[in-house]
This record gives sequence, C-alpha cells and structure tokens, in this order.
Amino acid sequence: MSMPKPFNIALAGLGTVGGGTAHILLEKATWLAERCGRALRIVAWSDLEGHGKRDDCDLSSVPWFEDAAEMAAQAPADAVVELIGGVEGMAKQVCETALAHGRHVVTANKALLAHHGLALAEAAEEKGVCLAFEAAIAGGIPIVKSLREGLVANRCRHVVGILNGTCNYILTDMAKTGRPFSDILKESQELGYAEADPSFDIDGIDTAHKLALLAALAFGHRVDFDSVHIEGIAAITPTDITHAEELGFQIKLLGIAKEYDGRVEQRVHPCLVPQSSDIARVAGVENGIQVQGDKVGPTFYQGAGAGGLATGSAVVADLADLARGLRRPAFSLPVAALKPLIPAPISQRRGAAYLRFMARDEPGVVARIAQCLSERNISMETVLQHGQKDQSGSVPVIIVTHQCQETDLYVALETTAAIPEMTEKPLMIRIESFDDSQAS
Amino acid sequence: MSMPKPFNIALAGLGTVGGGTAHILLEKATWLAERCGRALRIVAWSDLEGHGKRDDCDLSSVPWFEDAAEMAAQAPADAVVELIGGVEGMAKQVCETALAHGRHVVTANKALLAHHGLALAEAAEEKGVCLAFEAAIAGGIPIVKSLREGLVANRCRHVVGILNGTCNYILTDMAKTGRPFSDILKESQELGYAEADPSFDIDGIDTAHKLALLAALAFGHRVDFDSVHIEGIAAITPTDITHAEELGFQIKLLGIAKEYDGRVEQRVHPCLVPQSSDIARVAGVENGIQVQGDKVGPTFYQGAGAGGLATGSAVVADLADLARGLRRPAFSLPVAALKPLIPAPISQRRGAAYLRFMARDEPGVVARIAQCLSERNISMETVLQHGQKDQSGSVPVIIVTHQCQETDLYVALETTAAIPEMTEKPLMIRIESFDDSQAS
Repeated sequence: MSMPKPFNIALAGLGTVGGGTAHILLEKATWLAERCGRALRIVAWSDLEGHGKRDDCDLSSVPWFEDAAEMAAQAPADAVVELIGGVEGMAKQVCETALAHGRHVVTANKALLAHHGLALAEAAEEKGVCLAFEAAIAGGIPIVKSLREGLVANRCRHVVGILNGTCNYILTDMAKTGRPFSDILKESQELGYAEADPSFDIDGIDTAHKLALLAALAFGHRVDFDSVHIEGIAAITPTDITHAEELGFQIKLLGIAKEYDGRVEQRVHPCLVPQSSDIARVAGVENGIQVQGDKVGPTFYQGAGAGGLATGSAVVADLADLARGLRRPAFSLPVAALKPLIPAPISQRRGAAYLRFMARDEPGVVARIAQCLSERNISMETVLQHGQKDQSGSVPVIIVTHQCQETDLYVALETTAAIPEMTEKPLMIRIESFDDSQAS
Repeated sequence: MSMPKPFNIALAGLGTVGGGTAHILLEKATWLAERCGRALRIVAWSDLEGHGKRDDCDLSSVPWFEDAAEMAAQAPADAVVELIGGVEGMAKQVCETALAHGRHVVTANKALLAHHGLALAEAAEEKGVCLAFEAAIAGGIPIVKSLREGLVANRCRHVVGILNGTCNYILTDMAKTGRPFSDILKESQELGYAEADPSFDIDGIDTAHKLALLAALAFGHRVDFDSVHIEGIAAITPTDITHAEELGFQIKLLGIAKEYDGRVEQRVHPCLVPQSSDIARVAGVENGIQVQGDKVGPTFYQGAGAGGLATGSAVVADLADLARGLRRPAFSLPVAALKPLIPAPISQRRGAAYLRFMARDEPGVVARIAQCLSERNISMETVLQHGQKDQSGSVPVIIVTHQCQETDLYVALETTAAIPEMTEKPLMIRIESFDDSQAS
C-alpha cells in the first residue's frame, strides 16, 4: 500500500515559535509520518530577518518567499502556519489570503484571533477549511482540544486560568525574593523573558486575548474581547504579597470566565487565591487552567505556557490533526450557531476582597476606614496593621472583607481615599476561591 | 442544507457508567447534535438487570436486547458502547462481535484492553473501524486524547499517575484521620465507594491495567500488562503516613512508566512523593497524571477519575469524535507499527527509599540495621525513632536512604529481617521525586 501524498506546509514567521515548529517538523519527520499516515512537509517559508538557517533548524534548501502573503497565495501548501504576530498587518493578511485560497490556517496569534477570529472562522467555513489555534492559548497544554473535543459533553460553568507566563514569573519571583515589581520586570527584560514593551503582558491584555478565546470555546458564544474587564499587575507590591501569604493566599493574575443566567462574565485581574488551591501552585512561567464542567466536574491542566518548542508542539499537533483529516469549526460550533455574548459586567460581582490602605500612623485611621466600609454594608473579616513604616512614613493597613457587592467596594474606596491620613490611593485585590469547583 | 443522518449507538451495560452515558446522550441531545453536525442516537441497549428506566435516564422506549452480543451483531448501530466490564465473557464477546460487524467500539474496560487490547485493535483495523477508550483511564480527564493527539509531537520520557480513586481516597483519609487502612476500606465498602472484592483496586491491579494502556499510547509500543511490576497499598500504616509527612512527603499509589535506553519500565507501587509536587496534591477520589514530553516539557492533568457522569463524559467524547468522522488507530499507531516492549525490570531501579522496621525497643537495634544497610552500600539520609511503642511493645525505626540499587535494598531487607529484635517484616516504600520533570 503506498503512502498518501504529503501534507504540505507553508511557514510564515521564523522567530522563537516558528523556529521551534520547524525544528520539530524536521527532527520528527518519521515519527509524525508514522502517526499521521502521511508526511508533514515544509514546502515554503517566509521570514523578513532570517536566512532559513538557525541553530535549531535549517530551511535553506526550502523555497523562500520575501512576501508572506504572496507565499500564502502561491505556495503549494495544504496549510499555512502564521507565526508573525500582530493584530493587523501582515499576520492578518497571511491568514486571509491563505483561507481565500482554500488553505487551512494554523496560528498562535491570540491577539489576531481575539479581534478577528470570527471573521477568519467564517472565511474558513466558506472555503471548507479549518482555522486552528491550539498554540494561541497556554502554549503546549492541549486546552483547546480538551475544551472542544475531550469535554464536548459538558456545559462549562467556568474557566479560570493563569495564562501569561511573564506575569506569573514576576509574581512568583516577588513572592520568593521580596523584590519590587519594577526590579524584576527590568531584569526579565534584560534576560529576554519579558518584551521590550511589556504592556501587553503586565497590563493583562495578553491574558484577556486568551480568555476571550477560551470563553468562546467553553460557552459556545461569539468571541467578545471588548467586554473583557482588564486590570494588570503593576500596582502589586511586595507588601501585598507578604500580607496575602500571612492570610493563606497567593496573588495571581487570573483570567476568569463564568456563564450564569444566560450571561457571561469575562475578567482579568490580580486575585488572592487560597494557597491550597491548584491554581496557587502554578509557579514561574507555567500556565494552569481549571475548567468546571457540568458532567465531569473540575478538571485542571498545567504546563509550559510559552517557549519555542512547547508552543511549537501545539502548532504541530494542529498540523497533525489536519493531516489526518480532522475537520472542526474553529470555535466548537459553526460561526452562525455561536450565540451572541451577553456580558455580565464585573460591577455585578459579589465576593470578598483584600484592601490595602497606606496611611500616616495616627490614631483613628482604622476606625475611619471601618466607618467608610460599614456605610456600604461591607463587613471586615480580618484587619492587619503591623506598623512597618515605609520611607514616606506611611504604614499599610490591610483589610480582608466578607462577601460584598463590587459597586459598594468602589464607593467605599472612593470615600476612604478622602480620609486625610491617607497617603496613597487604596488598592483592592479580589479574593477568588472557586469553592463551587471543589466538589466533583 | 439537511442534517446528515444520525450516528447510531448501541449501549451494552446500564450500570453506573452506562447510566451516566445514557443520561448525557439524552439530556444533551441538541447540544451534541450542534457540535457533531448530526444527532447521536441510542438505537438499542442491553442490560441483564435493568428495565431501561433509571432515575437518571429512561430507555424504555428504545429497543432492548436480552443478549448484548446479539445486539452487537444485529442492532443498526454505527458504534457499540461496551460498559459491561470483565476481562473475558460477555464484554469481550460484545467487542469482538461489534468489530466483526464493522461497528466502532467505545469502551471503559481497562481490564479487557490491558489483556486483549491489541487483538481488538487489530480486529478494528481489519474492518476499518475504531476502538476508542478515553473512559478507560482517569475517568473524565481527556488524557488519551492528550497523549495521542495533543502531544503527538512529543516523545514521552515518562508518564506518572494516580489512576485509582479508591486507593487515593483511602490514603488521603488515612492521612487526614490517622485511622488504619482496614477501617477505611471497610467503611468505603459500606458506602459503596469500594468494590465488595476490592483486590483489583487495593492490590494495584486496576492501576496496572491503566498504566499498561497509557504506556502503550505514550511510547508507541505494544500493550504489555504482564511486564508491569505491581504492589498494592495494604501494608501501609498510619505510622508510615505520619512519618512520611514529617519528612516532607505524601504516600501515593502511583503508576509509573518510563522509557530509556530502548527499554520501558512499568511499575505500580506506593511511593513517597514530595509534598511540594503536583502529584502529592491530588486528594480523595481524584486522579492526576504527569506526562514528560521531550518538546513540551512536563504537563499535568487532574480531575475526577471515576463516577457515572465523569466517565460518561469521556464515553460521549469518544462517540462525538466518531460521529464527526475522526478515525484513529487505537494505540496512536497501527498495531503492526507498534514496537514490541522490551521491559526494564524494577530490579534495575536506582533511587531512594523509605524503610520502616518494627523492633523491640532495645539498645543496638539501629546499629544492627545500619550495619546490614552499609554491607550493601546503602547510606542513610535520615533516621527517625520516636519510641511510640505499639500494643506489642514494638517501636518503629524509620530510615530514609540515599540513592541506592533496588537489588541491594532487597538483600539488606532480607538480612535486617533476621535481626533478633525485629518483630515484623520490614517495609520498603520507594521515594520518587520526578526531578527531571521540574525543568521545562
């Protein structure tokens, strides 16, 4: 029996992930052919900077295109892999061109998908090809496949994840070393772990891109990045981390998506999570995701969220699926069947919170804060005031609230900010316990 | 556009998992049809005891067969779901008959697959149909799909898992309550968590069945249940658990499969694992699996390992894949391409161990034990002797060794057993750290 014809791949972008993908495809050619029943063959590549020769792979004998969009149109490829990055520009053009020419698209580009995923999925459906993006979320962890296929029997109640390795690395290192945010960020940039412009990571935007995709997959609605509430981690201080630990918590930047009463809540912000929770243990650059299914209960997935080989592993998994003939709508359902998302605004949240006030160490401050909180029916579970003055002579007053309304917190924080002894804007970090997910 | 014809399912066995499966298929009929592009329809069922009517589902209007094998032959089914259980007899006959008639088989029967999986996979290949078994390993966790598809780019170095919820529940409860093994087992049996004949669970056989399947999937070799080294948990006492915790460990029953030097080590036995490890945190009836891939690094999967709905969720995932046209060899590769497994015997293991000696509290006992160990080049890292006498007047002497040869441990334990003060056979529990999996 002769082997079926090869599955031809055009590779746009030969950076970290592109290089990792090419490396795996070349090194594992026989391995993959055995498992797919046909060869996975790189037939063209495009990269502005490279010459197709890197330490980890050599594409110098494979046809090169200066223009990636031209490659997407002309190369004899079954699938085009887009690893250029960016929301608009060449990345988008490559995907659109490939789909228009009836080629599958595999991409790791969460920003592009969060903004244009639906349009691309529709373009793919029109041509009867696939848009695949396992690599766009949580690197090498097969979370897209798990949500779309492995948990297909489940209506998801929530998806909660640590989805950005840079933020998790910074928070983990702050907890370990006690160094301030800015020092660790600067070091990470020097070491190449964090981008020169780190705002996508530390402001929570990258997490929000991924969360919007996860939520669409989990709940079967249209991707709606614009309704994601987004806060970053830049305001977190070593003081917060120390106090959180004293209270039995870790601070993590989470993406949280919940569906209830026909609405979907999507939010990205720092959280205090119990030290005993699975998510608290995800350290360093790792990612971790908890999915609450109505039939299977909670399942948890953890692993490398970034890196050329880990992310390349996910790109190759998508290519292998396509080579074996797997055909799937990009977001679990055909675009026409996806429900419009009705957002549940974060202002409707009810939950506990950690509040940190910086105030001059004078009598009556705690009483004044307590008064502001009680006016909004916010009751205090714990008050910590250890009296370590900082350089400005301020001391932190830490309050953990009982469950309360988000909007009451906003008002109370406004009124406390007006207390004369207050030396900084108060900081609020939400406490999330995922108690509903403990029972399986 | 008219919907394609339904995907027809015949259900053999309507116990816990069968009932859960039927419940999901009926409750989620629309949901699943939307996601699969066609209806998943139960067209026949067979169960010796039921009348097709349970609290969670009603099949009384669906054709019933007294003989499940007859159903597998005659019902107009695309797939036959085997949830009868057992290594031989009707379960095997149902699968063989269904495959012979060109129907897909979906099963949760790890015992059957561990013994006859290759023959069944071959029979499926001959007819161009599939043998699917997501539900056979770790209940609702999509680990089979992750290994076979999500991690296809990876050569696995090891797979390590807590694969039996009953054992993990007993060990977790021993740690929490300090009660002895036999009490908790008896209570679990009364509550229906443990089987009336619990030996498959507590002797490690169920874990070994699952491990043999995981290893075949992970390493691409023929299922080889006979070469799995198996030890159960019945010898573990609360004393061991307390001492393990004092030393920074939890005791877990693990299935461990590693490939190195072209050989595969498969073993099931209690282990001391660091309290800081992911696997140590898998509590109660949950399952957890760590996979070490050469490209993605370590990934970790956790969730419900048993229960009608959780396991039914996995059965339905397999059915949905088949309904959508997914076709896969059962063990990642066609049977003819699976390598024969060359076992690496456990006697070649090199590692640390926890040793518990019960001895009369007389001077010189530790010195005599130490002498026996040193004769085999086993050096001691820690010695604990807290002197709590048990009813027989014996005290436990706990020794943690440095890395040593498994065979040296065997000899040393033989010689220590002959020390006159020894009142019980010494117990050895291997220490496993998975250090190689920490770096990603």
